[in-house]
Amino acid sequence: MTMIDPVKLDRLAEVAVRTGVNLQKGQDLVITAPLSAIELVRAITVHAYKAGAGIVMPFFTDEAITLARYEHAEDASFDRAPGWFYEGLAAAYKGGAARMAITGDDPMLLADQDPAKVARLSKATSIAAKPAMAPIVGFEVNWNIVAFPGAGWAARVFPDLPVEQAQGKLMDAIYTASRLDGDDPVANWAAHTTELQKRVKWLNDHDFAALKYTGPGTDLMLGLADGHIWKGGASPALNGVVCQPNIPTEEVFTCPHAYKVDGVVSATKPLAHQGNVIENIKVRFEAGRIVEATATKGEAVLQALLNTDDGACRIGEVALVPHSSPISQSGTLFYNTLFDENASCHIALGQCYADTIEGGSEYSAEELQQKGGNQSLIHVDWMMGSDAVDIDGITKTGEVIPVMRKGEWA
Amino acid sequence: MTMIDPVKLDRLAEVAVRTGVNLQKGQDLVITAPLSAIELVRAITVHAYKAGAGIVMPFFTDEAITLARYEHAEDASFDRAPGWFYEGLAAAYKGGAARMAITGDDPMLLADQDPAKVARLSKATSIAAKPAMAPIVGFEVNWNIVAFPGAGWAARVFPDLPVEQAQGKLMDAIYTASRLDGDDPVANWAAHTTELQKRVKWLNDHDFAALKYTGPGTDLMLGLADGHIWKGGASPALNGVVCQPNIPTEEVFTCPHAYKVDGVVSATKPLAHQGNVIENIKVRFEAGRIVEATATKGEAVLQALLNTDDGACRIGEVALVPHSSPISQSGTLFYNTLFDENASCHIALGQCYADTIEGGSEYSAEELQQKGGNQSLIHVDWMMGSDAVDIDGITKTGEVIPVMRKGEWA
Ligand SMILES: [Zn+2]
Ligand SMILES: [Zn+2]
Ligand SMILES: [Zn+2]
Ligand SMILES: [Zn+2]
Repeated sequence: MTMIDPVKLDRLAEVAVRTGVNLQKGQDLVITAPLSAIELVRAITVHAYKAGAGIVMPFFTDEAITLARYEHAEDASFDRAPGWFYEGLAAAYKGGAARMAITGDDPMLLADQDPAKVARLSKATSIAAKPAMAPIVGFEVNWNIVAFPGAGWAARVFPDLPVEQAQGKLMDAIYTASRLDGDDPVANWAAHTTELQKRVKWLNDHDFAALKYTGPGTDLMLGLADGHIWKGGASPALNGVVCQPNIPTEEVFTCPHAYKVDGVVSATKPLAHQGNVIENIKVRFEAGRIVEATATKGEAVLQALLNTDDGACRIGEVALVPHSSPISQSGTLFYNTLFDENASCHIALGQCYADTIEGGSEYSAEELQQKGGNQSLIHVDWMMGSDAVDIDGITKTGEVIPVMRKGEWA
Repeated sequence: MTMIDPVKLDRLAEVAVRTGVNLQKGQDLVITAPLSAIELVRAITVHAYKAGAGIVMPFFTDEAITLARYEHAEDASFDRAPGWFYEGLAAAYKGGAARMAITGDDPMLLADQDPAKVARLSKATSIAAKPAMAPIVGFEVNWNIVAFPGAGWAARVFPDLPVEQAQGKLMDAIYTASRLDGDDPVANWAAHTTELQKRVKWLNDHDFAALKYTGPGTDLMLGLADGHIWKGGASPALNGVVCQPNIPTEEVFTCPHAYKVDGVVSATKPLAHQGNVIENIKVRFEAGRIVEATATKGEAVLQALLNTDDGACRIGEVALVPHSSPISQSGTLFYNTLFDENASCHIALGQCYADTIEGGSEYSAEELQQKGGNQSLIHVDWMMGSDAVDIDGITKTGEVIPVMRKGEWA
């Protein structure tokens, strides 16, 4: 038995359903989850039906089944993905279903596998999954990602504890990071959204042309997309439902200009990606394109990621998170992007969110690209903020306005 | 921890993959399973990839999640089913995937739920699942059903044992019933198929017009479909792959005439259906249609089942199993149709198998119906054989030939 507090688990499930995905009466809910998160899936299902769900449809992945493929499958298997399944998910979203994803697998699950096979399978899956990802990145339906402290993950975060204790402690950390402490998590989230929206308004009012980052190993001029909009916290999907896509979330974010990024950036935290941890990423941009990329660990995985498609070596999201965010203050390195990206300013390789460009939800991929909105099969956030990074906003007239100093709002 | 023998579990998985579904190199495999059967699913996945599987895609149901719907969902939920998911499965089969189903849930799971809701959800699911069932009943792809001793099921079969022991004992019973004892299960199955095919040949050579059943509470004249073919054991699906759809299997079976069944039949074993057990079924047929049906327990579930659609109160399969079959001899009542139907002569309400009518795989539903092949959303086997039932074959010229006496081949 794990030492996960069942009361905390239940509250996490309830907030994920009510505040996170904000499931509507009669709406179906598609859940994707690691099998290890079954207790959370069960709790979410209860709260979803209590909220009036039509059908709750959970789909599970299993670490042992994933590994069995790497250990026993023929080579040709690694270029195949079940397109029919993703087409089915796309049909579900088109039919009005909401989506909830649970994260919590071992971030090092595939560390011992052939990086070339990992990359091939990842790419085949990205291509097949495109119809199911499009309604999410296009924010057509209300969706949410929430975390469960799986054993492999917990052992990685708290390697000195017995695994049951590690899971209990990681649950506590998820709980606090998800702003569930106190008597009224709904009120917590309302106050937090208000705070994020104050920052959003300030950034949108200034309508910067670019952000300039300066820090150890980082000297970057990052152009913003034409008509970019800053967002943060709860916002309405195109189906009209106001949801919180990420629990936790500490970021305000917008669309960078895929062709106007120049300079060097050094990652400030390891990046857990596809069952591997990539450490000390360092890249150089020229005209928006990554022309040099190194890492002290997992470099092959990074290179394969950048080679996924044309847009994989350009960026589609830029996000600001103060170094004093609660997740960052906890001092815990989560090896999970949902948490680590909310402890640090970050950028994301790959696909942009259409709704971070004014009118973008109506645009074709080509029109988005003309505004600077990047197009790719991937969307991978990585962390490059710290208490040593300064950020300036450059206005359209060339004025320089401090945005962050030593990792805090200026 | 359960007391399931891991060596037996692994052999069951291997035989299910190699002899049961006979997975081909490069073929994808769709698995549906209760979550409790995860250990078997993992073992099947390993053997499937060893056999050269392209992609193994497992889908899980969970007893707690099923119950959460009954306990918390709004009324309207019980008329809804995820059609997009079944369309996806249909696309997978059309794309060449094989199918494996794992049975093993608690047969009494829904015993405390409102039978009307159970019936509505069951019907909605049957309608939605039709595209995914059609390639199975039409034998378009190789498929297989195999069992895992889930806790709820084991506790029902061996109520006097602690549940871990019950699971271990049920695993042993599944193992023996599945003819996996001895050194060479593949040879066991080859010999068994030869034996079944001897019976198949005898029955096809006689080409009976009808079977007459006589026993306690049973007096039935059961017409056979025009051009019916007896089958049993391994046979080729339309994709050319020879598979064993059921493990275990002891039956030879064919297509009855949906409009030529008259008389009364009494079930000889309880029928586990949709989380309920129906006891002492007794029905009367007129011109193929059930015009009276009673049960001493679960009668509402039975009536709802018969009301699913027009074909639900006619039969689509008739199967002969000697009372001396190993499953029957074990004396164990499994409360699971995969086992109980293979311990007893049975008939199935609902859909016929197209390949039990000569040329039937090429026929439309209307053409099948003209031959006597029943059409329905359901296919539910129920047991009406025992050591007190005699069966005669009636030839086209009216000759009476003994088929079974006191439950044994005559
Ligand atoms: Zn972000
Ligand atoms: Zn992102
Ligand atoms: Zn049968
Ligand atoms: Zn049957």
